[in-house]
Amino acid sequence: MQFGSDNQTGASSQVLEMLTVANSDFTPGYGDDHWCAQATEALKDAFACDLEVFFVATGTAANSLALSCLAQPWETILCHHQAHILQDESTAPEFFSGGARLIPISGKAGKLRLDHLEHYFDLLAGHPPHTPGTGALSIAQVNETGLVYTPEQVTDLCSFAHDHKVQVHMDGARFANAVAALGCSPADLTWKAGVDVLSLGATKCGAMIAEAVLFFNQGLAASFIHRRKQSGHLVSKGRFFGAQFVGWLKDNHWLELAAHANGQAQHLAKRLASFSSISLRWPCEANELFVTMPRQLANFLHTAGAEFYQWPAHGLPPEVVLEKEDIFARLVTSFVSTDEHIDRFCCLIHEYESIQHGK
Amino acid sequence: MQFGSDNQTGASSQVLEMLTVANSDFTPGYGDDHWCAQATEALKDAFACDLEVFFVATGTAANSLALSCLAQPWETILCHHQAHILQDESTAPEFFSGGARLIPISGKAGKLRLDHLEHYFDLLAGHPPHTPGTGALSIAQVNETGLVYTPEQVTDLCSFAHDHKVQVHMDGARFANAVAALGCSPADLTWKAGVDVLSLGATKCGAMIAEAVLFFNQGLAASFIHRRKQSGHLVSKGRFFGAQFVGWLKDNHWLELAAHANGQAQHLAKRLASFSSISLRWPCEANELFVTMPRQLANFLHTAGAEFYQWPAHGLPPEVVLEKEDIFARLVTSFVSTDEHIDRFCCLIHEYESIQHGK
Amino acid sequence: MQFGSDNQTGASSQVLEMLTVANSDFTPGYGDDHWCAQATEALKDAFACDLEVFFVATGTAANSLALSCLAQPWETILCHHQAHILQDESTAPEFFSGGARLIPISGKAGKLRLDHLEHYFDLLAGHPPHTPGTGALSIAQVNETGLVYTPEQVTDLCSFAHDHKVQVHMDGARFANAVAALGCSPADLTWKAGVDVLSLGATKCGAMIAEAVLFFNQGLAASFIHRRKQSGHLVSKGRFFGAQFVGWLKDNHWLELAAHANGQAQHLAKRLASFSSISLRWPCEANELFVTMPRQLANFLHTAGAEFYQWPAHGLPPEVVLEKEDIFARLVTSFVSTDEHIDRFCCLIHEYESIQHGK
Amino acid sequence: MQFGSDNQTGASSQVLEMLTVANSDFTPGYGDDHWCAQATEALKDAFACDLEVFFVATGTAANSLALSCLAQPWETILCHHQAHILQDESTAPEFFSGGARLIPISGKAGKLRLDHLEHYFDLLAGHPPHTPGTGALSIAQVNETGLVYTPEQVTDLCSFAHDHKVQVHMDGARFANAVAALGCSPADLTWKAGVDVLSLGATKCGAMIAEAVLFFNQGLAASFIHRRKQSGHLVSKGRFFGAQFVGWLKDNHWLELAAHANGQAQHLAKRLASFSSISLRWPCEANELFVTMPRQLANFLHTAGAEFYQWPAHGLPPEVVLEKEDIFARLVTSFVSTDEHIDRFCCLIHEYESIQHGK
Repeated sequence: MQFGSDNQTGASSQVLEMLTVANSDFTPGYGDDHWCAQATEALKDAFACDLEVFFVATGTAANSLALSCLAQPWETILCHHQAHILQDESTAPEFFSGGARLIPISGKAGKLRLDHLEHYFDLLAGHPPHTPGTGALSIAQVNETGLVYTPEQVTDLCSFAHDHKVQVHMDGARFANAVAALGCSPADLTWKAGVDVLSLGATKCGAMIAEAVLFFNQGLAASFIHRRKQSGHLVSKGRFFGAQFVGWLKDNHWLELAAHANGQAQHLAKRLASFSSISLRWPCEANELFVTMPRQLANFLHTAGAEFYQWPAHGLPPEVVLEKEDIFARLVTSFVSTDEHIDRFCCLIHEYESIQHGK
Repeated sequence: MQFGSDNQTGASSQVLEMLTVANSDFTPGYGDDHWCAQATEALKDAFACDLEVFFVATGTAANSLALSCLAQPWETILCHHQAHILQDESTAPEFFSGGARLIPISGKAGKLRLDHLEHYFDLLAGHPPHTPGTGALSIAQVNETGLVYTPEQVTDLCSFAHDHKVQVHMDGARFANAVAALGCSPADLTWKAGVDVLSLGATKCGAMIAEAVLFFNQGLAASFIHRRKQSGHLVSKGRFFGAQFVGWLKDNHWLELAAHANGQAQHLAKRLASFSSISLRWPCEANELFVTMPRQLANFLHTAGAEFYQWPAHGLPPEVVLEKEDIFARLVTSFVSTDEHIDRFCCLIHEYESIQHGK
Repeated sequence: MQFGSDNQTGASSQVLEMLTVANSDFTPGYGDDHWCAQATEALKDAFACDLEVFFVATGTAANSLALSCLAQPWETILCHHQAHILQDESTAPEFFSGGARLIPISGKAGKLRLDHLEHYFDLLAGHPPHTPGTGALSIAQVNETGLVYTPEQVTDLCSFAHDHKVQVHMDGARFANAVAALGCSPADLTWKAGVDVLSLGATKCGAMIAEAVLFFNQGLAASFIHRRKQSGHLVSKGRFFGAQFVGWLKDNHWLELAAHANGQAQHLAKRLASFSSISLRWPCEANELFVTMPRQLANFLHTAGAEFYQWPAHGLPPEVVLEKEDIFARLVTSFVSTDEHIDRFCCLIHEYESIQHGK
Repeated sequence: MQFGSDNQTGASSQVLEMLTVANSDFTPGYGDDHWCAQATEALKDAFACDLEVFFVATGTAANSLALSCLAQPWETILCHHQAHILQDESTAPEFFSGGARLIPISGKAGKLRLDHLEHYFDLLAGHPPHTPGTGALSIAQVNETGLVYTPEQVTDLCSFAHDHKVQVHMDGARFANAVAALGCSPADLTWKAGVDVLSLGATKCGAMIAEAVLFFNQGLAASFIHRRKQSGHLVSKGRFFGAQFVGWLKDNHWLELAAHANGQAQHLAKRLASFSSISLRWPCEANELFVTMPRQLANFLHTAGAEFYQWPAHGLPPEVVLEKEDIFARLVTSFVSTDEHIDRFCCLIHEYESIQHGK
């Protein structure tokens, strides 16, 4: 019953096999090998365009390195107030960029919307050099509460941003889940919609340790190799990043893994709908469920071995007031989630409700 | 009719004279001179305590260097959402600290209050190393809308901060005006209330180019000389900072200058109260007035030579809605403001209102 | 005939197996898992002491993060003029530390010696805050020309450094090779000799992607978790670092891998001694050979498929003058080098010499 | 007898007067005033070209801000091994640039020469991204041992640098002295010779606190206003920098001050030539004398009130061996040095020699 995070899994067997195959023989170091070359081609195919790609070990590195190519040290990076880059990556964006400032513009939970951008540019954007100018917009796909931006929504945000000379970064830690959910093409969600740079996370969805930064706007990529090396993110045995991506992308494996995780989340959502003690607070669009439940139920589930995290209350829909005895929580499914996990989890809730009812 | 900013003035004659006296003869460089020694003694007298003091040329340097001694690169600095360090000093705090993040906690205009701090610590403070921990609290005295924190208010904020192992910085760009307004002692407003470090601005209130950073909590000052030198803020002819402070502090000169500016502001506030077209939006407690007026009046005044700045609407009291035809503006008096300036300004408003009335 | 670098290999089968074992099941993320716990215990056993350990993906990250814990932004890091941290890691030390400066003190190739340190402190150490003070000493074990510091030499350097309040970092990218070469204990070469922090490289000697930073002086480690996160080096599926180290350390595997590489280097050195066209320029003490040879021979070997790198001439012993027609080169053996590689390589040299002789 | 440093003086009376004139009345802040505009025009006239100019308070800020516009964080800045930016400005260049590395290429004292550059590019320049690429060359005019580069020498260095895509910065802390010494035009020594950016120091030669950064290559200046603000170097009462430069440049005042200082140095050099106990070690070309003398004489002079600094021995000409009983020292004259200072100083040496002779 592991619904804690999709990063608590191992690698998919196909990815692991490719790592094993890549382990034999000698190759040049630092990514100048045929595995990385093959992975690059596979990414170009998957996104149906030319692009520049760089591999790194972590999502924080991918995001921060990408953003440091978009925003000057004296500029800002607009984002959602719950953005992972703001809430969960220490002060990495500031460190990598030499001082650029994250500005949360959403105010409330949910998707980042065009009117958030408009409001910012109408009222808050300042007067450089005193006030930092705006350097980049970063949006997360899947977003902070498990929602998926449609291609139209991405297009609108990018279009507004570009009109204001602001480049767009997409934090795609769960990008595969978004593509699988929408059934559109990776291209539709990215460069066709105006995204300049994508952090494409493989780790959460079947890789061991592997993230890629994809520059659709290749003119922005010039400093990346220097930034990656200077920050210690150029690995010597680079082939292993290449091999993971080769395995991950081959035969649509990545989207199948994501579809499985999404399907499990849908299944879990359906099952939870039958309980009165637990409420889904955001539509389940990818592989995350955001729910409220009594603290007592949470304790009951934890004690029985279920894993999931309590979530900050500012992630609730604005109209929802968290009852004092309740908690807000996140449940994540993954490529290895099974119906059995879900069954056991729901049985526990059933058991809890029975006890409560019996009182 | 210069109500634009108190930094549009020159130096007071007493300060200028001291600079002239200090100009003759040779002295050691880099602040190892008798003028700096004398200024240090004068500051210890003025604040009635032992302290460490460092001189720099700008308020941004004073604030950022001070804050970099309080917050680690992976920590946050809590402040008002209109704080000068957040709104008007580029990304200097991030740059000097190596990445520390400013977190505005006030939400609304007015003073920063204990419940803002409580709310932050209850709901938003995170889980290092993922979320940055809290490193410092910075408050401005005089504050962002011309209000003055009482010693009790400062004490409450510092006390809460210290209970949470957070050090307190005070941005005293207009500290002299606050002291003059309250009629308390400098000590009451700072170390007695728990302030660890004060940026003491002399420039806006009679100096030419001179700011001081005062560490009441001397244990925090260890790295300052290194940080000041590394950031290019150690001036070779340091005596001229010393001399300005000697002149500024001598015979209570600084507080007299501040009292004059404050008195002029009071005078202007009283005069403005008689007009219907202009409304004071915050109590006038020091040397700044925050008003709303028709854009048409603002244009009329500007055309006639009056100087003042339009101000961001998020500085209005939360209950005030800015009418579409109005602007929010700031008027600042200084140590050289005169009754005549005020007379002329009010005559213009009178003229404007007459014309309007005649229509 | 791959003598290019020991980072052009894969992982040893024992390491790969452990990765495979660790792949199944769920574990907590970010290193809070039983594999990392087990690896930590194994490292404490191997070094026969308590210590703090942190895993990262690259040697550059390991070195720079370690050094940023030892040197303030306004301090220097003393090192060999050929040090990897100086020559091959971009400006990572400056970036991670916020400005600390590398000062090469060796002047000439070979080991860094006590008299280099003495000379520096006698003549070059400056007057803070104008001149940066000295923050750290970093030495490489195995060193820059394949030599191994004896425990006595390490002790002397550390002792002098500590007498001058300077902390010592050891870049152990090939630390296993040094231990295997000396036949001493890991403890003898590190904390018993005074080393404060060790970058322990596993990647070059049988791991896939895995480095560890070991703080023997645990008081210096306080900021590491923050620095690692801020620089994007905290991986989510941390178990895979743990697993690699568990596999690498188990049953003395690491030292056996290193001993094999060292043995191959000895074997190659012996074979090369019989040729007149190639000269070993530094004693072969670990798994690297530094040789001079005619450029023509180098081309001949490269054409035939041998891999090795030309090396900067300033790595030659000071008394050696590089002939115009010669090059300086490095040959590296690894845990997968075989006698057959060496045979083929030597056959080629023999062939070359025969041709030359026949002319 | 103050020969310690030209920064131990006050401002010239003409500069001080201009400051006093500029003190009255209101002006816009942050350099948007008529004094700064006037100073800019005066600089364009003095250098006979269009240029961009920025004022700051210190030489360290001028140098570091300028260099940060020329070198990327992962690049190097080539300089003399005694360069002020390397020896006396903490790690400011690294801090401002985000990590760029200073590389001393001279090896020995004296001027930086073309063959130093050639040697560096032949043997030491590396392979980015592993080794930092070369970003900038910085030379000091007057140089580190009081020598003056001829326009031809500057041209040769700049030409080589530009051929290697490296931009050139000139540290002109004593630029006025160089111009006065050579009798050439400011243009001949700078943009006509290929200098891209000049740090023009006024402080040491008659200003109070005022330095200017002049971009002849205006394309490099784009980020300067942001960097200056972010580093706290934009002063609010900017007019006082403008006023100092207006006073300094007016009627060739700056070059007259410099010529006076240079003349005093020549005079002192001539007088010292008659003594056997003191030896001039570098030609006196501007306003500094580098001498050796017995430690006993130095003590005698210091006791009698003479001020000068002992200097690091690595500043001696390579062929000079410092005797154990001797010290190397620097004597600096300034715009306020007088024949009487020199007379008294020489009388003391005479007295010392008489005593010695009498023994």
